[in-house]
Amino acid sequence: MLSKAKIKLIRSLEHRKYRNEQGLFVVEGDKTVREMLASPLSVVCLLADAAWIEQLPVVLQTKASETVPVTAQELAQVSFLKTAHRAMALVRIPEYTPDLDEIVSCLSLYLDGVQDPGNLGTIIRIADWFGIRHVLCGAGCADTFNPKTIQSTMGAVIRVKTCSVNIDFLEQLHSKYPEHPIYGAFLDGENIFQQSLPARALVVMGNESKGISPKTAKLVANRILVPSYPAGEPTSESLNVATATAIVCSEFRRQISCDTLP
Amino acid sequence: MLSKAKIKLIRSLEHRKYRNEQGLFVVEGDKTVREMLASPLSVVCLLADAAWIEQLPVVLQTKASETVPVTAQELAQVSFLKTAHRAMALVRIPEYTPDLDEIVSCLSLYLDGVQDPGNLGTIIRIADWFGIRHVLCGAGCADTFNPKTIQSTMGAVIRVKTCSVNIDFLEQLHSKYPEHPIYGAFLDGENIFQQSLPARALVVMGNESKGISPKTAKLVANRILVPSYPAGEPTSESLNVATATAIVCSEFRRQISCDTLP
Repeated sequence: MLSKAKIKLIRSLEHRKYRNEQGLFVVEGDKTVREMLASPLSVVCLLADAAWIEQLPVVLQTKASETVPVTAQELAQVSFLKTAHRAMALVRIPEYTPDLDEIVSCLSLYLDGVQDPGNLGTIIRIADWFGIRHVLCGAGCADTFNPKTIQSTMGAVIRVKTCSVNIDFLEQLHSKYPEHPIYGAFLDGENIFQQSLPARALVVMGNESKGISPKTAKLVANRILVPSYPAGEPTSESLNVATATAIVCSEFRRQISCDTLP
Repeated sequence: MLSKAKIKLIRSLEHRKYRNEQGLFVVEGDKTVREMLASPLSVVCLLADAAWIEQLPVVLQTKASETVPVTAQELAQVSFLKTAHRAMALVRIPEYTPDLDEIVSCLSLYLDGVQDPGNLGTIIRIADWFGIRHVLCGAGCADTFNPKTIQSTMGAVIRVKTCSVNIDFLEQLHSKYPEHPIYGAFLDGENIFQQSLPARALVVMGNESKGISPKTAKLVANRILVPSYPAGEPTSESLNVATATAIVCSEFRRQISCDTLP
């Protein structure tokens, strides 16, 4: 049975302000909720129908601090989806402060105003696939813990650390590690497939319509482009930012893997 | 001034049945509508505010068979978007029957039940970027001319030919051209980066949750995978289908381009 207070709490979590106040976010989807229960993240409340809860392994049944059996109707009432699934979880937002030394020891992403929650979520899922553990969200980015973003990550948010930062962070990184390569995707960049890419780098991806801002661009020494084919033919103005991120990350990883082939 | 009949017509075009009956689809967005006017497609009706129409080059102002100046309020009333733009166009669905000889002369896509309109639109945009001129939509696919699909293509539908086909088409292709390579993305496929990919091929991408159907899979001789990194580490179950399509198409084109480098 879903209390009025709980309904109010869940609904409030649609808004970033209340998510931050409560330190909570909403996860929907039978599979993703299950993954959350099995993850190191802290599930504060599990809402699901009794049969769904029962089919869970016992160790997962007792994982949430609170378990509330609900009817399909009750779940539909609080769901952020058009068609509610059978389970929902309220999960504690993981605390994460990015560490410069850690960032420069691997391949990481810096998003310069990726404002669509679906694109951000897809990018986090891509990062997960390519073993990128840090996604830094610069000014103007959607919120990782927005229900739409979480939905698009398909559970990847369990493994990928994301954090809101601003240009100062990028400037600190560049001033402490001036040799650390910073790449960025630009429509007038160099063909990525003609570059020899390093294993450790920061890759900057820009806003859906404006690309990388001039302020951020100043810190990007290596301007890259996913070239259209055939070169010079009329085509779309650009790729979607999540699509471009996928190809860029894939190429960074392909080059490492080729290097290490027997 | 928007007549009741026009409002009814536009609203009906949300549904595939009426789009097919009328042979029309809806395009929204100032930029995409402009692109449609400049394209070889037949714009049957342009709806926009008077100032927007006036700023068009004269040759585009007279392109639509009918031009209806509307207020922002009128446009919002018929828009399929949360926030309407300043212009909408009703465009004739281009007739296109795929030709086997043409399909085997280039790199083409066959979508085996890509059901999300946003994914289909993103894939058409990706096809455009990589010079893929034919996207064959197998059974269970979303409709190219769904307003959501059209929105995601960002105008790419002008250059990419799409067509609804079924498994018979694939069987005919295979029986007429048994040597024509058919690739398909599978989670147990071979690492795409370790393959030597041909310039001419048909690439099959599957449904969001079920992948390529067993019936279609029988015709796929070359099973490929975009590998996660590092190999064997826990990660997301899969990439989103549009993301995977982007990386696959990009790799096909990269290999051709590398071959032709000086």
